[in-house]
Amino acid sequence: MARLRGAQVHVGELTGEGKVPWGLLGDALHSVKPDLFFCVHVDTSTGTMVPVHEVLEFVRNASPYTLSVVDTVASAGNVPLHLEGLADYAFTASQKGLSAPAGLAPIALSARGFSHARPASWYGDLTRIWEFWERGKYHHTPAVSLIEALERATARVLEEGIPRREKRSREAYAFLREALRGDFDFPPEEVAAPTVAVLFPKREPPEAVLARLEASGFRVAPGIGPTAGKAVRVGLFGSQAEAVQDLAEVLLGVGA
Amino acid sequence: MARLRGAQVHVGELTGEGKVPWGLLGDALHSVKPDLFFCVHVDTSTGTMVPVHEVLEFVRNASPYTLSVVDTVASAGNVPLHLEGLADYAFTASQKGLSAPAGLAPIALSARGFSHARPASWYGDLTRIWEFWERGKYHHTPAVSLIEALERATARVLEEGIPRREKRSREAYAFLREALRGDFDFPPEEVAAPTVAVLFPKREPPEAVLARLEASGFRVAPGIGPTAGKAVRVGLFGSQAEAVQDLAEVLLGVGA
Repeated sequence: MARLRGAQVHVGELTGEGKVPWGLLGDALHSVKPDLFFCVHVDTSTGTMVPVHEVLEFVRNASPYTLSVVDTVASAGNVPLHLEGLADYAFTASQKGLSAPAGLAPIALSARGFSHARPASWYGDLTRIWEFWERGKYHHTPAVSLIEALERATARVLEEGIPRREKRSREAYAFLREALRGDFDFPPEEVAAPTVAVLFPKREPPEAVLARLEASGFRVAPGIGPTAGKAVRVGLFGSQAEAVQDLAEVLLGVGA
Repeated sequence: MARLRGAQVHVGELTGEGKVPWGLLGDALHSVKPDLFFCVHVDTSTGTMVPVHEVLEFVRNASPYTLSVVDTVASAGNVPLHLEGLADYAFTASQKGLSAPAGLAPIALSARGFSHARPASWYGDLTRIWEFWERGKYHHTPAVSLIEALERATARVLEEGIPRREKRSREAYAFLREALRGDFDFPPEEVAAPTVAVLFPKREPPEAVLARLEASGFRVAPGIGPTAGKAVRVGLFGSQAEAVQDLAEVLLGVGA
């Protein structure tokens, strides 16, 4: 997306064990002095979680004028997030950790981020969107039904509380890890995201597992990027964590 | 929107009576030779309808290499539209003539329009969207619930048929015109859009009418642009036309 807008992009990757390469990150910040730093909180392709608060603090210290953007798509609403003073722009998706219908992208923006916003298009014009939401100026007809659904879903998230939701995802993941140990490999426990379980089948191709899940009414994603053709990816957001026992049976092919 | 993307914009307006200024349009096409011609089908600010098929044919004859874009927001699903061979891009909104929830913008694109499409942003990249819809490549997570609702709403439109839907809107409008004659002015009958009745109150300010409608549970728009502060605007799309008798009573203040 950044290249599409003409940006020069420098990509840094986690180590093979899913750790942050702090030395390389520091060197890159000093040599490139980027206008914008982007990182994901949960990498859904590998099911690993980046220690995003430490990373953002590191970036802010090493390069104070760099704007930071963080993708919290597979984390917001399910794990703790304290981005004030650390990130300039964060976004998520309604259908993941917030357990609302798909179609909305809730965002958070710092005052500094807002002052740097330049419109790429009418619908990407944050100044107009701000005037629409805060001052009642007309900008677009919003997706009313989705916004109402998001409001209710968010109220449920706040009611349950992030700690309890995180615990629920972690327990579901721990259950899967234990139940599937003989048949699937997992990412290292210390970097695994509690919200996206990436499972590598040991004895059968991922397609066979996906077909079994599909036939049993489970909608589970195939591997993507580095895990394409190698894994299946199970979302353990909010209420989805409840189905984990039935899911484990289908994953193991019990009774099939 | 076009200026935001760096386009040089030449604006032509309808005459005071809502007619197309054919001579001026022809002159402008010959002198400017525009890359893109844009027109609305229904101008919702004044409640007038442009003879869009004639206009598009005129443009295609006068300037064959000009791409044509038509806004069918307040017409598609309620009045006949035959844009094949006439327009390169047309768009509408789910919540108007199609009577579906707000949040989607159905579009139609000619092969020529598609070949000229250049991405302004990731989400405005029609090539990627085409690959997503037609070839199953991943582009974004769609608003599933809105798409399902649109599918059902569109099926109802097709079941009823455009001629009957148009008749329903026209009859509702004719009823309003007759019932409100003493208290409201209307645009000239021959240019009035059947889907958006713009009413100019003769005896009271529009705010008073809007307050009465709001209090009776009707959601009606105020004037906008040239009719700001002068009119109220009533949508007569699809099933909304059914409430027209109750609406007329509130507009007239009967029983208030």
